[in-house]
Amino acid sequence: MKKTDDFAANVYIALLHYPIYNKLGEKITTTVTNLDLHDISRAGKTYQIKKYFVVNHLKSQQGLIKRMKKYWTGGYGASYNKNRHQAFSVLSVVDSMQQVKEQIYQEEKSEPLLVATDASSLPNSISYQDLRNKMFEGDKPYLIVFGTGWGLTEETLDICDYILEPIYGRGDFNHLSVRSAASIILDRLLGPDWWS
Amino acid sequence: MKKTDDFAANVYIALLHYPIYNKLGEKITTTVTNLDLHDISRAGKTYQIKKYFVVNHLKSQQGLIKRMKKYWTGGYGASYNKNRHQAFSVLSVVDSMQQVKEQIYQEEKSEPLLVATDASSLPNSISYQDLRNKMFEGDKPYLIVFGTGWGLTEETLDICDYILEPIYGRGDFNHLSVRSAASIILDRLLGPDWWS
Repeated sequence: MKKTDDFAANVYIALLHYPIYNKLGEKITTTVTNLDLHDISRAGKTYQIKKYFVVNHLKSQQGLIKRMKKYWTGGYGASYNKNRHQAFSVLSVVDSMQQVKEQIYQEEKSEPLLVATDASSLPNSISYQDLRNKMFEGDKPYLIVFGTGWGLTEETLDICDYILEPIYGRGDFNHLSVRSAASIILDRLLGPDWWS
Repeated sequence: MKKTDDFAANVYIALLHYPIYNKLGEKITTTVTNLDLHDISRAGKTYQIKKYFVVNHLKSQQGLIKRMKKYWTGGYGASYNKNRHQAFSVLSVVDSMQQVKEQIYQEEKSEPLLVATDASSLPNSISYQDLRNKMFEGDKPYLIVFGTGWGLTEETLDICDYILEPIYGRGDFNHLSVRSAASIILDRLLGPDWWS
């Protein structure tokens, strides 16, 4: 395992609000949770991801996110809390996964490898160790995709190159918030090798 | 490193709302953040901690937490989302750190070893690897203490047996939310050894 300093891949993350399953397995658009913006921006900045895309096609929801970002990155909010300003520099609002992929391609001149996250065990899932090794060794950009509501739909899983194995702690209960899951996943994939 | 199944220590966590520093270094009581209750209960349950103590001496704040817990563990909330019901089973509201220690002593017939968490590098801090080894090998209970606001005060750090080193990602920025920090710390200390 290489050290964090030798890290090669550029990593992006996306939080999807559509298409998402609700409790009944129907396809819905979820609403934005304020602390998803704060917590995942802060974790993203801590693990030096290049951009955190919040995917929501509703203009009213996009407006909410942009106002929140403007508050913390300009004027009083920015001077009150400088590190929140830095954290939100990675946050970007877009309409769709297609737009996420286009923006990454423009930036990287290379298609990102897509990694889906899911709390269920799915066939062909990749382990944390294997994905970490690929990220440390490869030079392609990666996009890690997180869901909201009751999770990512089949159509999103189908376009992903990898499905990351679920996070298990010390038992069968693994109902983490997306804020907790994103933090742990970034730490496992991109954090220093504290165990060695 | 032993496997998770062999885990020996009983681990408790506490989230302090008093005494806490504010931005100016003054000692204050912080207010409860709803998602601190949800996210840390869910992470706590995932990593099989024995109890999650929310420490707040204000009766109005305690009432708020108890109403929230009652909603999700009884009646409509419990039937709507069964895993939230399980998660909140670990949540308990208390007045003070003294009460936390007394409750753990009653349960364990042994004083817990106290572990402070802090985002700053402090002298004599313990590494994740060392604390994990101690937890896996020892039979004393542990209490991991998390702060809110601008962090734990000197008087809390002074009574702790260990100060856990800060979480660093891939750079100097380490301004994680307490929800993210608690999730990553539980994963590093109590999670399976996914890297081996």
